[in-house]
Amino acid sequence: MSVIAPEGFTAAGIACGVKASGDSDLALVTTADHKAVPAAAVFTTNLSTAAPVVTTRAHLESTAGMASAVILNSGNANAATGAQGRANSEAMCSLVADQIGCHPAEVLVCSTGLIGIPLPMAPIESGVAPLVAALGSGPEHGVAAASAIMTTDTVRKETLIKGATADGGRFSVGGMAKGAAMLAPNMATMLAVLTTDAQATPEQLRDVLRSGVADSFNALSVDGCTSTNDTVIILASGKAGVPADGELERAVAEACGSLAMQMAGDAEGATKVVRVIVKGAASTHDAKLGARKIAQSLLCKCSWYGQDPYWGRILSEVGSSGAAFDPERASVTYGGVTVCRDGVAALHDAVAIRAVMEARHIELVVELGLGEASAVMLTNDLTHAYIDENMGTS
Amino acid sequence: MSVIAPEGFTAAGIACGVKASGDSDLALVTTADHKAVPAAAVFTTNLSTAAPVVTTRAHLESTAGMASAVILNSGNANAATGAQGRANSEAMCSLVADQIGCHPAEVLVCSTGLIGIPLPMAPIESGVAPLVAALGSGPEHGVAAASAIMTTDTVRKETLIKGATADGGRFSVGGMAKGAAMLAPNMATMLAVLTTDAQATPEQLRDVLRSGVADSFNALSVDGCTSTNDTVIILASGKAGVPADGELERAVAEACGSLAMQMAGDAEGATKVVRVIVKGAASTHDAKLGARKIAQSLLCKCSWYGQDPYWGRILSEVGSSGAAFDPERASVTYGGVTVCRDGVAALHDAVAIRAVMEARHIELVVELGLGEASAVMLTNDLTHAYIDENMGTS
Repeated sequence: MSVIAPEGFTAAGIACGVKASGDSDLALVTTADHKAVPAAAVFTTNLSTAAPVVTTRAHLESTAGMASAVILNSGNANAATGAQGRANSEAMCSLVADQIGCHPAEVLVCSTGLIGIPLPMAPIESGVAPLVAALGSGPEHGVAAASAIMTTDTVRKETLIKGATADGGRFSVGGMAKGAAMLAPNMATMLAVLTTDAQATPEQLRDVLRSGVADSFNALSVDGCTSTNDTVIILASGKAGVPADGELERAVAEACGSLAMQMAGDAEGATKVVRVIVKGAASTHDAKLGARKIAQSLLCKCSWYGQDPYWGRILSEVGSSGAAFDPERASVTYGGVTVCRDGVAALHDAVAIRAVMEARHIELVVELGLGEASAVMLTNDLTHAYIDENMGTS
Repeated sequence: MSVIAPEGFTAAGIACGVKASGDSDLALVTTADHKAVPAAAVFTTNLSTAAPVVTTRAHLESTAGMASAVILNSGNANAATGAQGRANSEAMCSLVADQIGCHPAEVLVCSTGLIGIPLPMAPIESGVAPLVAALGSGPEHGVAAASAIMTTDTVRKETLIKGATADGGRFSVGGMAKGAAMLAPNMATMLAVLTTDAQATPEQLRDVLRSGVADSFNALSVDGCTSTNDTVIILASGKAGVPADGELERAVAEACGSLAMQMAGDAEGATKVVRVIVKGAASTHDAKLGARKIAQSLLCKCSWYGQDPYWGRILSEVGSSGAAFDPERASVTYGGVTVCRDGVAALHDAVAIRAVMEARHIELVVELGLGEASAVMLTNDLTHAYIDENMGTS
């Protein structure tokens, strides 16, 4: 059910001592034979780019999209750490390369945790040998790797999607991810590693990954903050053969969607997962503007926490989103119960709406009545616990 | 110390019964002789425009910027109320016009409170006669009017600024405002009425008002939400004569700045007022993008609540703001204590930074090192009490 499920991969996760808590904090995903395979990645758009993002991007460019391994640490983001931070990211790759016998540029690296604190290298230097020794392809190895990348996550995030190959066989896409806050469109603050045994070129992987990310991680907003470290990586071992037409794209999109939904469900302090659907917009751009403004609205998020279908705030957000909007054509529907029609209050069943708002998963449909375009965003409520989690750095 | 201080105005505030609590909820500001004087207004940019905004804009257009009175109610925003809502806004103006003997188009109207609930007209219909009877120009009349427009405000917001006239005399600009949440650039959710005894044309008033609003209410963000009802109105009685060069613009800007600062200080649940200054930007547009992104960041707001100078989040926000940015040229300074220099942690006095972060007023300077442009935003922290205030509509 994770990165080790597709044929041709091993994984490990250990506690090396980056986290003062002693929790596991160092993960590795490699090809089983440590040979480089086609790989692709997408990264944060934040200009405060963390060192591991710089390193991974450079490595994939220098190998033209081939990689043997991904090393990941939690507990420190190695972001805003200057030239020393970049040297440390390179060192992490070299340490792995020395141990598994590949070129350092074939190793990719991710970090997650606090920003602005120098990465402690001693625990990583002493941790890489036991990490490589712990590699394996059993379910427990996938669990160990997925656990070692958690920060404020309360649950591991893993996925496994099956697809058909051109010759009638099966391939799979496995994945693990972390991310519970600093989540916004243009990538959540999140790391994800996907593996597949499908056969694909680096270019094909890049295309299916971009497409899969667009409707999953890039349509997820917990708090509107875009991280310095966001990275999604995919490695393809090719062991299962060539996927049938469109099957790899579908499987990668499903894997990304599954991980994004798990992130929304584990967002810091959240009590609700809200699917915001804006329909009837004049353009897709407008639909996205409206959906994003609602998904990032503090007032809407507070209403959801209070289980209050306060539709006036929904119209107000769309009205200030930049999208073409005529309130008198708009309707607002929560879980099938329409609470606003033609821009004014709609008579509705008070018992039914209470049941909708009390559920953990809420679907909100805003119909603009202006066209045919639509967009979807996944988001959460804003709670006391979110504030507790983010008041301090410790 | 309010709208009655400049010569030529009267005001009143009463409880008419729109608010179930019985608190005062109906205010009126008129010229002393009920004759129309030059007036100007700026409004919300939200396309979910509330009925009173539609009415006030139409009235000022039809009179070419002349007005005798402003009626304001709290307890109900008369927003998302359709054609009936617009009829109700017109009726409020006609009721006042009948009582004071002016044309209905010379009366302007503002409403604030919940969105989407029909405005109860019976209490307003029976309230206008006693409201007009209560008009006066004593300090208590200004207090009564400023009190009657409060919603979740915990304190009245009033200002009085003095200026020089061309002939060596004095004029003044008085003002009252409400606003404690749904505050964002492009006007907070706020109402403000300014009066002046300076002599000015409607065009001059419009220019000084736009200029004053730009650096005060439009540079204030509590929660990034833009209201349906935002209105700032100014009336000029002309009793004090022609202001000296630039004096009216300065006085109006100071009055707006004072009211904006009072709103920031009374923002829902806030424990901190934070002045965000972005300097050294490549352009003013970039400086504003950066300052606004920081001011609207949930993570930065949580850090301030926790009195934590977590500068990594500051760089991350600027990096994802759309502004040109090179983290290695950036520094972050809280209250004169530099915590980040050239994009990495700066050694600093831990005692000094603690004192800075513990204060109610915090100044944050982010130097980008790319140019000469700068921008300022006024904002708050995000607290448990903000969520409490916004979880429900009651």
